[in-house]
Amino acid sequence: MEPIVGDLITLKKDDISYEGILIPSPKKDSIVIKLSSGYNIGFKRSSVEITKIKKRQRPKIFPETKFDKKKDLPEISLISTGGTIASRVDYETGGVRWLMKPEEIFFMTPEISDIVSFKNISSPFQIASESMTFECYKILAKEAAKELNSGAKGIIITHGTDTLHYTSSALSFMLQNLSKPVCLVGAQRSPDRGSFDGAMNLIGASYIAAHSDIGEVAIVMHGEMSDTYCNVLRGTKVRKMHSTRRDTFKPINIPPLARVFMNGKIEKLSEYRLRQEENEVYADVEMEEKTAIIKTYPNFNPDIFDYYIDKGYKGLVIEALALGHVPTDTINDKFSWINSIKRATEEGIIIVFSTQCLFGRVNPFVYSNGRIMEEMGVIYVEDMLPETAYIKLSWILGHTNDYSEVKKNMLANLSGELNYRIKGDNSGL
Amino acid sequence: MEPIVGDLITLKKDDISYEGILIPSPKKDSIVIKLSSGYNIGFKRSSVEITKIKKRQRPKIFPETKFDKKKDLPEISLISTGGTIASRVDYETGGVRWLMKPEEIFFMTPEISDIVSFKNISSPFQIASESMTFECYKILAKEAAKELNSGAKGIIITHGTDTLHYTSSALSFMLQNLSKPVCLVGAQRSPDRGSFDGAMNLIGASYIAAHSDIGEVAIVMHGEMSDTYCNVLRGTKVRKMHSTRRDTFKPINIPPLARVFMNGKIEKLSEYRLRQEENEVYADVEMEEKTAIIKTYPNFNPDIFDYYIDKGYKGLVIEALALGHVPTDTINDKFSWINSIKRATEEGIIIVFSTQCLFGRVNPFVYSNGRIMEEMGVIYVEDMLPETAYIKLSWILGHTNDYSEVKKNMLANLSGELNYRIKGDNSGL
Repeated sequence: MEPIVGDLITLKKDDISYEGILIPSPKKDSIVIKLSSGYNIGFKRSSVEITKIKKRQRPKIFPETKFDKKKDLPEISLISTGGTIASRVDYETGGVRWLMKPEEIFFMTPEISDIVSFKNISSPFQIASESMTFECYKILAKEAAKELNSGAKGIIITHGTDTLHYTSSALSFMLQNLSKPVCLVGAQRSPDRGSFDGAMNLIGASYIAAHSDIGEVAIVMHGEMSDTYCNVLRGTKVRKMHSTRRDTFKPINIPPLARVFMNGKIEKLSEYRLRQEENEVYADVEMEEKTAIIKTYPNFNPDIFDYYIDKGYKGLVIEALALGHVPTDTINDKFSWINSIKRATEEGIIIVFSTQCLFGRVNPFVYSNGRIMEEMGVIYVEDMLPETAYIKLSWILGHTNDYSEVKKNMLANLSGELNYRIKGDNSGL
Repeated sequence: MEPIVGDLITLKKDDISYEGILIPSPKKDSIVIKLSSGYNIGFKRSSVEITKIKKRQRPKIFPETKFDKKKDLPEISLISTGGTIASRVDYETGGVRWLMKPEEIFFMTPEISDIVSFKNISSPFQIASESMTFECYKILAKEAAKELNSGAKGIIITHGTDTLHYTSSALSFMLQNLSKPVCLVGAQRSPDRGSFDGAMNLIGASYIAAHSDIGEVAIVMHGEMSDTYCNVLRGTKVRKMHSTRRDTFKPINIPPLARVFMNGKIEKLSEYRLRQEENEVYADVEMEEKTAIIKTYPNFNPDIFDYYIDKGYKGLVIEALALGHVPTDTINDKFSWINSIKRATEEGIIIVFSTQCLFGRVNPFVYSNGRIMEEMGVIYVEDMLPETAYIKLSWILGHTNDYSEVKKNMLANLSGELNYRIKGDNSGL
């Protein structure tokens, strides 16, 4: 009898037995089981013998967790959106399924009930972060504003990590007059694994949301590979920098705002907007969808600009080279960007240059190449991340298409996205 | 009398005098001079008084430097291509001009004559690195092979920094059977500045090219912000990570190959291909030009794939999210990539996924999203950098369009571009 996915089976290979739940295998001739440690182990099908099958043993479902509201704890609101932190593997289908109720998230993190009380827990949508769109940002911003304006001392948003920094950036611009903490939290390991990092991140975020003096949008995630503390990272100056590590989110061109330890200690590391309880938050959510990011690289054929022009795009963020350079003096003219940028700006498309180095800033005045672009109207956005520049440009273009207005706003420090001058070097590289 | 660019002038502001050469100003109402320290200082035109003008004082031209060949020093060849390391500001035009002769490069670095002897010094073209194309790589590879096959113990290529890592990657694939050092060197500060870093980088590269046991293409640049040592970085696993810092080049997902100190000491840090004097090098330079890099981001409209398909592109490298994710389950179907990737692969376009995190690796088997793409034929290139994947794909497609052949080669470790498994974490993040 062959086992089916979800069965608890025992495999024997070279006299060693392995017990685990059969999960779907990426290849036909292999067999993969999930051990009780949470790790997966795979074998060549022909190299193992199945010695025991316990049919369709389903892993225990997280039991319902109830929180008694404790009167002396500050009240925050939680918004759950999907992602690894809110998922578990469904061993019958092999797919990931979202937690049935956002409350299930606390099963792995009961410590939270000693830190905060929950005013409201909601889940407006459950989407993996790679599939989020501007529409999602609008829903989140409105939900966060509603909760903050009706008494929440702070917000925790659970979210997939892949695009967490795009969302943190969007909320940073959308949440006008914000002066309470909005903490975005994800996990790099799912709750059914021993190395689940979401619990620590949630605890860190609870301290920040309820007890800190921070009044900004921030990502709260592991600060190191070990479980020492979480970093609190400004929503507009942060980027996912490693595909698997738990300390994947790094501050770019500024230090972290703070560190938070698991005993509640908060260590301030740089200046930030301070909490003010009485402010009314306003969710200003309009975004232009006809925007794109284009990366510069050798042998890039700038004909692609014609596509964006013809499709009616309003703004393009260029991940330019280094100080903000693009090809201009190529051996073969067809690779020069000059005519394409000229045509695009003449058609009224806003062109923004940021650096694909990520660390450091663009500057059009060092080489003549940059001056040519600047004179054509390209906006050089200092040390702003390309991802942040894309979100910011889309948001500004949601409000105005006027070149001067867009330029003025792109170069204004609306939500900590710009450091006008780095003293010494605190880029974090 | 108003001064003109190139004049040596003295400005007075608030009773302090500043002497320097007038250089072009980015703005009409400002005035900028280059001080003798090499730094520029700018003022509002109306805030200063010009007290002295010495007409058209041209800064001294680097005098001709002659190298007596020393018989006991190993012979290497130098190829000069332009870039900051081979430039000086032309104070008459305000533009950058290339050194008249590649030998001028040594005026700032006379120490080299005690380290190496030069078999040949050539400059097949002088192009800023942002304007380099595949055509340039072909010329460089052929020139390097010719020199190595006629007796050079190693090669130094001076080059702009903006795309130095794309060139190092291209040469890594093109130079078949290479077993001598090919060192790429640039500078983040021009030779007319006190903080010129090219001298130290050239000295480091001279030691590596002439005296090391390395047999690979490597970038040799500052290892720290201070002048302690240069890092020797594998040509396929390196990236420019800061727009201005002198230690901008960082190894990604491996340690540096070695460090080289200014006294010639070479500290080996990881395994590399060893020098073998007798090998014949072959420059295999064919590259497909119909390739592109596309970055994944929220609200990306995948209609752009139609453009690449219709234009006859052969290969696309996707800077996917994290483990290699792209939007699939968006609220609005128009943002899902599934149909576009399906159409592209059906049309025979090779689709390669790398991670925009840069650090870490892609893996299609963690989430169902990845499995869907893998089944459509997407090639997940482990921990290969997007930039390297783009160069490698273009090079492989220059030789074959057969999917199985391309996939086999993309996943084969041809020039140290893949680390099949990172033990612990040595990603360098």
